[in-house]
Amino acid sequence: MRIGVLGSGEVGGHIAKKLAALGHEVMLGSPHAKDKADEFPGIALGTAPEAAQHGEWVVNAMEGATALRVLKDCDLDGKILVDIGNIESSIDGPLETPLGQQIQENHPTARVVKTLNSTSAHLMVDPGQLPARHTVFVASNDDKAKSEVVSLLEDFGWQDIVDLGDLSACRGMEYLAAAWIPINKALGTTDFALSLVRKES
Amino acid sequence: MRIGVLGSGEVGGHIAKKLAALGHEVMLGSPHAKDKADEFPGIALGTAPEAAQHGEWVVNAMEGATALRVLKDCDLDGKILVDIGNIESSIDGPLETPLGQQIQENHPTARVVKTLNSTSAHLMVDPGQLPARHTVFVASNDDKAKSEVVSLLEDFGWQDIVDLGDLSACRGMEYLAAAWIPINKALGTTDFALSLVRKES
Repeated sequence: MRIGVLGSGEVGGHIAKKLAALGHEVMLGSPHAKDKADEFPGIALGTAPEAAQHGEWVVNAMEGATALRVLKDCDLDGKILVDIGNIESSIDGPLETPLGQQIQENHPTARVVKTLNSTSAHLMVDPGQLPARHTVFVASNDDKAKSEVVSLLEDFGWQDIVDLGDLSACRGMEYLAAAWIPINKALGTTDFALSLVRKES
Repeated sequence: MRIGVLGSGEVGGHIAKKLAALGHEVMLGSPHAKDKADEFPGIALGTAPEAAQHGEWVVNAMEGATALRVLKDCDLDGKILVDIGNIESSIDGPLETPLGQQIQENHPTARVVKTLNSTSAHLMVDPGQLPARHTVFVASNDDKAKSEVVSLLEDFGWQDIVDLGDLSACRGMEYLAAAWIPINKALGTTDFALSLVRKES
């Protein structure tokens, strides 16, 4: 499948490499992507709108206001948009509107699926690096798009994928990203994740 | 020990009963506590200021604006104040100032310890009800108070207690409570909790 990954930072980089390793035709898009050929062998590089144009699916790995601004120049019509981002202010300040919901509102014909946004970047694409099962959450207003993204998460190695329903779950999911911060500070490592413990599991 | 529990809802009720079962002299304080003698046998009942006066320790099991208002009438000077509460708006709207930090600011001589606020009430006092280990977080500006509260959490049955440092962790901890909402909605039960998975654990 052709997938455009928007944002060439740590998150976008990990996702692009994993998708390419899984055999997808990836284009990584950002203002600086074209300078990163050495870092991303075998991955096409372009601007964010070019990467969005390339993709049958689009992955948002940009944060907050940047994501909202850049996505406005991208063709997302009818495409699955996997939103991995967070509003910056969710980390250390009030979160007005969750990013996933704002993107869906700005792009009503995009099929927005929120996931992975509270997981350390290297664990997003290789959850088995931790010694115990941990959980990824997923939410979307489009059930079919959600089930397709769940398949991709399984390809990434995820075993515990919890469906939180529609995009109204975005606030809770983006708040989880904010909780990542003090845990990271306390443990001094990004090698951690949250697992959802329940009776049936 | 004499402990005042402020708030006689589900959280305060569970905490008061557990503390009494552990042999502490508990007073439960709220506007309606005195009507609940049948529900709380062996537990003294009074107003919130009376319960605070009674306690060597005080537990805040009230939410948001109510907690801030009621605590202003309570003597907390030099006492350990275990804050289990959350700002209501942290659940479905922007969180301006986390409750734990606001209480510490309003009561500079109280020894505020934030904990338990993102756990289902019945699991706060009996974490072993779930089939796998899960995690409680704790934060305070007062290390000695924090270590005393950790001992109490151990008495409650907690095995995985993670120290998140000072009260700047309150925002992340209170956001975890907001994440509880969509998970509760998706699972249709309060029998769940989050576990912190890491390499050394």
